[in-house]
Amino acid sequence: MSELPLLPARIRPAPGKGVTSVAKVTDAWYVACLSKELGRVGVLARTVLGLPLVLFRTQAGKVGAFLDRCPHRNVPLSGGSVEGESLRCQYHGWRFDTGGDCVEVPCLVGEPGGPARCAESFPVREQDGWIWVYPSAGSTPATEPYALPTRGDARYTTVLDVVEADGSLHAVAENALDVPHTAFLHRGLFRGVSEPNQIQVVVRDWGDRVEAEYIGEPRPAGLAGRILAPGSDAIVQHFDRFFLPCLAQVEYKLGDTSHFVVTSAMTPLSDHKTRLFAAISFRVPLPSLLVKLVLTPIARRIFAQDAVILARQAENLRRFGGEQFASTDVDALGQQIRRLLKSAERGQIERYDEPREKRFEMRV
Amino acid sequence: MSELPLLPARIRPAPGKGVTSVAKVTDAWYVACLSKELGRVGVLARTVLGLPLVLFRTQAGKVGAFLDRCPHRNVPLSGGSVEGESLRCQYHGWRFDTGGDCVEVPCLVGEPGGPARCAESFPVREQDGWIWVYPSAGSTPATEPYALPTRGDARYTTVLDVVEADGSLHAVAENALDVPHTAFLHRGLFRGVSEPNQIQVVVRDWGDRVEAEYIGEPRPAGLAGRILAPGSDAIVQHFDRFFLPCLAQVEYKLGDTSHFVVTSAMTPLSDHKTRLFAAISFRVPLPSLLVKLVLTPIARRIFAQDAVILARQAENLRRFGGEQFASTDVDALGQQIRRLLKSAERGQIERYDEPREKRFEMRV
Amino acid sequence: MSELPLLPARIRPAPGKGVTSVAKVTDAWYVACLSKELGRVGVLARTVLGLPLVLFRTQAGKVGAFLDRCPHRNVPLSGGSVEGESLRCQYHGWRFDTGGDCVEVPCLVGEPGGPARCAESFPVREQDGWIWVYPSAGSTPATEPYALPTRGDARYTTVLDVVEADGSLHAVAENALDVPHTAFLHRGLFRGVSEPNQIQVVVRDWGDRVEAEYIGEPRPAGLAGRILAPGSDAIVQHFDRFFLPCLAQVEYKLGDTSHFVVTSAMTPLSDHKTRLFAAISFRVPLPSLLVKLVLTPIARRIFAQDAVILARQAENLRRFGGEQFASTDVDALGQQIRRLLKSAERGQIERYDEPREKRFEMRV
Repeated sequence: MSELPLLPARIRPAPGKGVTSVAKVTDAWYVACLSKELGRVGVLARTVLGLPLVLFRTQAGKVGAFLDRCPHRNVPLSGGSVEGESLRCQYHGWRFDTGGDCVEVPCLVGEPGGPARCAESFPVREQDGWIWVYPSAGSTPATEPYALPTRGDARYTTVLDVVEADGSLHAVAENALDVPHTAFLHRGLFRGVSEPNQIQVVVRDWGDRVEAEYIGEPRPAGLAGRILAPGSDAIVQHFDRFFLPCLAQVEYKLGDTSHFVVTSAMTPLSDHKTRLFAAISFRVPLPSLLVKLVLTPIARRIFAQDAVILARQAENLRRFGGEQFASTDVDALGQQIRRLLKSAERGQIERYDEPREKRFEMRV
Repeated sequence: MSELPLLPARIRPAPGKGVTSVAKVTDAWYVACLSKELGRVGVLARTVLGLPLVLFRTQAGKVGAFLDRCPHRNVPLSGGSVEGESLRCQYHGWRFDTGGDCVEVPCLVGEPGGPARCAESFPVREQDGWIWVYPSAGSTPATEPYALPTRGDARYTTVLDVVEADGSLHAVAENALDVPHTAFLHRGLFRGVSEPNQIQVVVRDWGDRVEAEYIGEPRPAGLAGRILAPGSDAIVQHFDRFFLPCLAQVEYKLGDTSHFVVTSAMTPLSDHKTRLFAAISFRVPLPSLLVKLVLTPIARRIFAQDAVILARQAENLRRFGGEQFASTDVDALGQQIRRLLKSAERGQIERYDEPREKRFEMRV
Repeated sequence: MSELPLLPARIRPAPGKGVTSVAKVTDAWYVACLSKELGRVGVLARTVLGLPLVLFRTQAGKVGAFLDRCPHRNVPLSGGSVEGESLRCQYHGWRFDTGGDCVEVPCLVGEPGGPARCAESFPVREQDGWIWVYPSAGSTPATEPYALPTRGDARYTTVLDVVEADGSLHAVAENALDVPHTAFLHRGLFRGVSEPNQIQVVVRDWGDRVEAEYIGEPRPAGLAGRILAPGSDAIVQHFDRFFLPCLAQVEYKLGDTSHFVVTSAMTPLSDHKTRLFAAISFRVPLPSLLVKLVLTPIARRIFAQDAVILARQAENLRRFGGEQFASTDVDALGQQIRRLLKSAERGQIERYDEPREKRFEMRV
């Protein structure tokens, strides 16, 4: 009685057969929200890897993260309110400290505590304007969250932005680090307005991160390029990087004076919905306010086009029940990211001291 | 490809594991609608325990209840119309009497009747302004529907109301008979405005019904209490009762003059949607119109708050794939109701002549 | 946790048990769209038998039909655009000719082609204002699409119309070829306004098509009948026909001068959604513009009533998890159509040179 039936096997064109690039890597840090979203004292419902969480900040400024479910009658704790150093459920008034221990059961004569009455709590960190959670209950993280490379460097301006896309972490990461689509989907905004040049690409794989370096790339001919490097014929240095499991980074150096690093922390809300927390750091020989004013509408337009195509892709993967991708050399990082994510999901990351290199030619 | 994926078992916090308080007890009477909803001659679609039904009243005033599906081409009979003592389908015009027998097949040369051409009919009763059905086709009920205790007593005024909640019968019954939440969810309306007193609770279990008596309870300090017993320091008698499988009853006596009995017949529409037919009977030393005018908005406000929290609870049970409840003594009836429902679902009700008693202290 | 739970087997009235008239016959031609919907150069997303397709017309006027999924990153090709004799994907710009071969991969140094980079293409035909597809990838159709019987006959006017119904192909075909419902659902518009006459029905079955002839039928007494044959007492010849797998045809001859043939090509979009492409051909002793002006609103009203009842039927089949139909003689073609469809789905069509005949009486 399904509305989009599967046709009999003998005649249906080969579908995706359930193949998917979705990978669930839970022993890692993910950005749950911006620091400013939580405010000074606040309660916030957020989803990370399909896990409903409640985040809250106490009077003393401490941040707590629980499963968004009261252990008593399972209502969402995100409907509750902060009282001092605790979070109180709105239904029967049970109260929990930031460690998840139950410190009050109203009406009850006797002790409130006990293991069955704990809220399940998760490790939390706050840095660079982001609140990170480690969505693996009861575990002790072996690492700390990624620190922005320009942190503390006064020459750089950093802007934070948040966008959401209907696409898996893999789809969003590949899109963020992909060169060929820019000439079609973003025609005129970024690339695709002049005759292509043949350049060299070096892909380096460390097992837990991967990088593509584009050598000999001309200054992007679109509007963005002309603003980033006005009148410049300077050499462009361009790196695209992926760090397991959720960071995409694009770095551009134009001559000696302009430097851009866009780091995107991608948080899967569900299999095919990803929130992207972008930190755009730059150093340019122009007033940074001017750069922001000019680049913001272009960046928003580019992202809106990406969001549309990612949603269409996700919808099609849903319709066909999976993926069936064909790739070529110029899909420089997509397959690498997939391989890294799948090995991390299995808990089998193999790190190399010396990166494995691959080189090829490409026309951009 | 699901939107809220289950995480790998090794890291996901313990989910509900499919545990649920939903219980399907079908050999019992449920209220399908108010008498006045069906009108003098009318046809009505109603769902009881997930079963789509059509109810209709004939010219002679008789009520019929069928499965809402024409045996011919399976369209809903609730689109049809009453003709004399029968219901006619709107598609091909087949006609059925209140027993479900087919009495006309238009165009057909020959007899209309036959077992395959019957509409499936259900036992029906009409009393106390409610239409009860027994949602077990082809069976003969061994009992009659519950009769309101104040029926025929001229000292009592009875008001009927209907509300709907996103919650299982268990969740709605527990909420209706729960004391501790009133001080938080309904703060100021009912309880929670004065310092708590320590009182005694007696829980009595007869196997097919259960009762909590609250001894020494002060007059509820909220607005409702002050209206129900103005200026009173009188002793309050308070009973909460559940009768298998669908009745919740709250009884309050304030002194000698005021008596309230609220009987709620709960009808599960589906697993997590319940319609509640309330009969509020009262006897007070005040004009009953005044009581209605004052109490109706307070009761509506209280129910609206309950409906919100029940919907959040149901949504969370859906998100987590089941329940994981922790209980304490002060959850006086919730666990008892669950046990009774589960035994009734298995057809294993054990009745006791003498109730089993349990006593504990509570602060209200 | 489902919203419409299945009740325990012991008490639930017999449900549909998953019985369904849905049949998937894929080695056949279906109308995907009107020629004019595709325009002169255009791209169109259409679903046939649950299969998402992209249709496009090239500069030279050729029509192509692909699975609506780019082999590269699986986005829908229906978001792309026609360039000369090819279709270009909007994401990375891959380009395909009407046979599905990849003819360009932007940025790539080297050959674009190769089997994994093909768009999956389907056979297409354009005739009678309709674009037919054969939704079986990689197969060579053994037949050609059905040709309208009045094609090229200048005495006939042909009007094309498209409507959509929430119902399976079987439900829509049965409805289109059913007589008894017209007196109830379309009371006054078509039949049902005068006393019924007893007539004879002959059903002829050729194994791959079936026909009902109605002998002695009076002129339909409703509005439509009076317009089609004004003042006529002439004999009416009426045939209803079904051709495997997707054609319903109603033919009316009223005296020597009026002849109507309504051929409906039914395309299942999904199990319970069908698009109906109707070709209404007629020859009458009246200006054809007048006939169109008078009949169009009546036909639209009739179809709107059918669409409502088909949607209710489909919704009820969904609620009950399948069908449980009881039939009588006067359901002249419904069961025959079901049998033909089911045998075609199994690939076991048995054709008879001489039709098998069945006769019965009916009151219309």
